[in-house]
Amino acid sequence: MSTDFHHSGKSRVKRLPKRGFYDKETIYKILDEGIVCHISFILDNQPFIIPTSYARVDDAIYIHGAKTSRLLNIMDGRNKLCVSVTLLDSYVMARSAFHHSMNYHSAILFGTGEIIHSDDEKLIALKVFSDHLVPGRWEDARQPSEKELHATHVVKIIIDEASAKIRTGPPSDDEEDYGLDVWAGLLQFKTVLLDPVDDPRLKDGVNVPEYIQKFIKDKNS
Amino acid sequence: MSTDFHHSGKSRVKRLPKRGFYDKETIYKILDEGIVCHISFILDNQPFIIPTSYARVDDAIYIHGAKTSRLLNIMDGRNKLCVSVTLLDSYVMARSAFHHSMNYHSAILFGTGEIIHSDDEKLIALKVFSDHLVPGRWEDARQPSEKELHATHVVKIIIDEASAKIRTGPPSDDEEDYGLDVWAGLLQFKTVLLDPVDDPRLKDGVNVPEYIQKFIKDKNS
Repeated sequence: MSTDFHHSGKSRVKRLPKRGFYDKETIYKILDEGIVCHISFILDNQPFIIPTSYARVDDAIYIHGAKTSRLLNIMDGRNKLCVSVTLLDSYVMARSAFHHSMNYHSAILFGTGEIIHSDDEKLIALKVFSDHLVPGRWEDARQPSEKELHATHVVKIIIDEASAKIRTGPPSDDEEDYGLDVWAGLLQFKTVLLDPVDDPRLKDGVNVPEYIQKFIKDKNS
Repeated sequence: MSTDFHHSGKSRVKRLPKRGFYDKETIYKILDEGIVCHISFILDNQPFIIPTSYARVDDAIYIHGAKTSRLLNIMDGRNKLCVSVTLLDSYVMARSAFHHSMNYHSAILFGTGEIIHSDDEKLIALKVFSDHLVPGRWEDARQPSEKELHATHVVKIIIDEASAKIRTGPPSDDEEDYGLDVWAGLLQFKTVLLDPVDDPRLKDGVNVPEYIQKFIKDKNS
């Protein structure tokens, strides 16, 4: 049985409550499928957004960047954060302009950030991060040196509350419009990976490894 | 010659300035290619994000939704807004874990919103909106009734300042790592459209119109 994330007024889906979900299983799935999240925070009474890659572990997401990044430093505990992950599934083409819609899976998280100082925890987070993007890459790539690790900030955002908003299914037209001679249905999006492009400076004899070929095949299946 | 958007400290790309662009042509292109934007605003000292579809006209973007939407009402002039459009292009696979990156085109806009009250301007905005998603659909679908138009809020967000951040090209490894036996290069994403799915209640004899077939073909080419 899946438990729910805490959801107060700020995370509850109000306008179309049947599209709102609060169980962790649903929200984890969206977070684990997404690649880029958008994080908003307040600075000098102005909202800011940064898009960034991330990875989830339990009820937290990790982001990382250069230690010199002003934005990552802002995320150290002092600021309230809102994080959004949005997966667009299809255009919903109704017979009336009014009932056009989109099918999507999206999650909104609220929480605060915390810069990770332990080298061990940073390394674990960076591996999780890498595994979230391309499984197998971490073991293949050159591992971070101590200097590189120290130049990297890892921020853990603990999810205080969260909700998902999901629309699925066909268009929903007004009853009298179903007789119109207008095509209606779904135009579904799929994100595929193209054939890998070798680095122009790739060493002779080095081929695309099997875990990357598998990754592309899985994504495109 | 393209002119620049205004860019003060809040929109300037600071950490990797060579990735920052301010000319309208570059920023328009990103906005016109995106489908979903993320909008953040402040409410009760808490940042919020909503993902939503949009369309650009000149130096403004339009969003729309139900008149009963709490969030659209918040966008009427009173609140500072930040809007982000992010297009992920590829994973950048370097030889070292540290130098892994992503290629992307992204735009950040700052501005304020304004609810459009004129029916004529609303209709124009909704048509632009529809054309941005699927050209030709507006003329084919049943047009909004007066009641529907009144149930819809259209918000115009005037762009006060903006910047784009773009990374392109191959990985950039440390010189001594180019000799490693690790594959490096790009894994490129492409969003394609699958074959249209008919509404289960589609009227007999109604086929996928030509402008939709063309739209899918163009997107997938």
